Amino acid sequence: MPGAQTAGEDALATLLALVGDDMAECNRAIVARMDSSVPLVPQLAAHIVAAGGKRLRPLLTLAAARLCGYAGPRHVHLAACVEFIHTATLLHDDVVDESQLRRGLASANAVFGNKASVLVGDFLFARAFQLMVEDGSLAVLGILSSAAATIAEGEVLQLAIQNDLSTPEERYLDVIKGKTAALFAAACEVGAVVAERPAPEAAALASYGGNLGIAFQLVDDALDYAADQALLGKTVGDDFREGKVTLPVLAAFAMGSEAERAFWRRTIEASEQTDSDLDEALRLIARHGAIRVTIDRAAGFAAEAKAALAVFPPSPMRDCLMAIADYTVSRAR
Amino acid sequence: MPGAQTAGEDALATLLALVGDDMAECNRAIVARMDSSVPLVPQLAAHIVAAGGKRLRPLLTLAAARLCGYAGPRHVHLAACVEFIHTATLLHDDVVDESQLRRGLASANAVFGNKASVLVGDFLFARAFQLMVEDGSLAVLGILSSAAATIAEGEVLQLAIQNDLSTPEERYLDVIKGKTAALFAAACEVGAVVAERPAPEAAALASYGGNLGIAFQLVDDALDYAADQALLGKTVGDDFREGKVTLPVLAAFAMGSEAERAFWRRTIEASEQTDSDLDEALRLIARHGAIRVTIDRAAGFAAEAKAALAVFPPSPMRDCLMAIADYTVSRAR
Repeated sequence: MPGAQTAGEDALATLLALVGDDMAECNRAIVARMDSSVPLVPQLAAHIVAAGGKRLRPLLTLAAARLCGYAGPRHVHLAACVEFIHTATLLHDDVVDESQLRRGLASANAVFGNKASVLVGDFLFARAFQLMVEDGSLAVLGILSSAAATIAEGEVLQLAIQNDLSTPEERYLDVIKGKTAALFAAACEVGAVVAERPAPEAAALASYGGNLGIAFQLVDDALDYAADQALLGKTVGDDFREGKVTLPVLAAFAMGSEAERAFWRRTIEASEQTDSDLDEALRLIARHGAIRVTIDRAAGFAAEAKAALAVFPPSPMRDCLMAIADYTVSRAR
Repeated sequence: MPGAQTAGEDALATLLALVGDDMAECNRAIVARMDSSVPLVPQLAAHIVAAGGKRLRPLLTLAAARLCGYAGPRHVHLAACVEFIHTATLLHDDVVDESQLRRGLASANAVFGNKASVLVGDFLFARAFQLMVEDGSLAVLGILSSAAATIAEGEVLQLAIQNDLSTPEERYLDVIKGKTAALFAAACEVGAVVAERPAPEAAALASYGGNLGIAFQLVDDALDYAADQALLGKTVGDDFREGKVTLPVLAAFAMGSEAERAFWRRTIEASEQTDSDLDEALRLIARHGAIRVTIDRAAGFAAEAKAALAVFPPSPMRDCLMAIADYTVSRAR
């Protein structure tokens, strides 16, 4: 559906146009504040920061602050905090997942080793809190420290259910609420807090971000079993090889024949995989429409995200954030 | 020198007697606040917390607050924050060092795996900041977030100089100032801040803690080459096997013959070690009195730590903190 794809890219382009100056300043703050007297720290940090990515989370902080009418300079630094926390979790994720690639380039752990990745992740995390202290809002510190704890809990839960096909969908959703949605929610909520808006608006933005984050991760998990995904700078089948229990697998397993279930038990639960197993997994997922199931679930959360924005009066920024919710789903179509 | 050993243990016993009730409450706070809805989090955290250790850092926070005349309840929670940050760094250290033992027991990474150790470390770190936000002091948040960044920088620097015998002693001191002394300094300074004492007293306690931490780490590095250290629940020779460049090695290398230097280059720089090499390393270190050099350096920092306390009027707590400085050195004698 190339039309939807284009609409999605338009949403991102519109967002960048609306907060482009803020984002340029945020990027400068990121580079300035990841510096250290220990050269390996900025070297490694620059490697992952230079790899780019859409910077969706800091963009959301900037957009949420503007949606709330904020006109000061603080949101730029808080957006940098959000990106530092995200980068720290990426560094630790890649160590935990033993990933060799990140956004199509060699991952930091592949280039600098696991040890440096763990420690520079710790540094960026601490640096994020230093920046928040400079900003001086205990409310913001509370939101982002809670998000950081929730992220770690989500990742530990993911580890606990790894290779377990009896995981209920609810539990899988708990994982993605923790590992992904918590930071999306916090990134958006911070925008209302910095603008000193009343609690219902902060809650609405937290709800927008949280639902957007769930949709985003569901689509990410679907794309890990999508065929043409080299375009996205990701490797197809990473989740499969790691035995991660995601919705495409849970859906295909639930709808599968006894022989198919045996296939999933061997490859995901017993981690016994041969070279042809990924192709078979893709076939089974396609046969049962498990990608469609996952994307439909994502569309539901994206709709909830959009609905949460109803407390705000119509504006180009509100339209844009709604279009971003559509984009998170359409990028898989 | 068994007399000194006894005096040291007396100092620790006196400290525990002076802040015993506070420490009991701190221990309860630690157990209560490391809880999570994800069972693996408290399971892993309990494993490392149950392994015990002296809890020197939270004890210092409690003692510093009492030295400053603080009579409220906040120092107990801040001491728990200090211990959480310390525990998080231990979990990540053991992953980075691939340690199998911690205080004589199987390390968390040996029992639960590297992945869970990295993530639960992240959780405890985030939880420490949540506790600080509940406490509500931006000054405390500033001190401990800066300490956390400095710890990570010290650890990265340690990684950068690993296997490098040309490391100047100054650089080695930068490592231990970062990885160890920064948290000792912060733990003590927080005591003055919570008691709302003027800046010179906060600075004096930071200086006491910082110098104490350097002395503590120098002695730790000496003990890694001391013969009878099974008593301490540590493995002799860990640093040697990892090619860590510590003062005992730097001193023995500097004073060594050309043949001895070749030995160190092979074992530390080229990481080519045979089973008998640790014994040879211990012999060379003994021959040149490199342990003595290290302990003497530690004694100098311990003296600076004691001198920093001169701004406080004499009291049993001040005497006790001075005795603790002696203890950090005497435990190696």
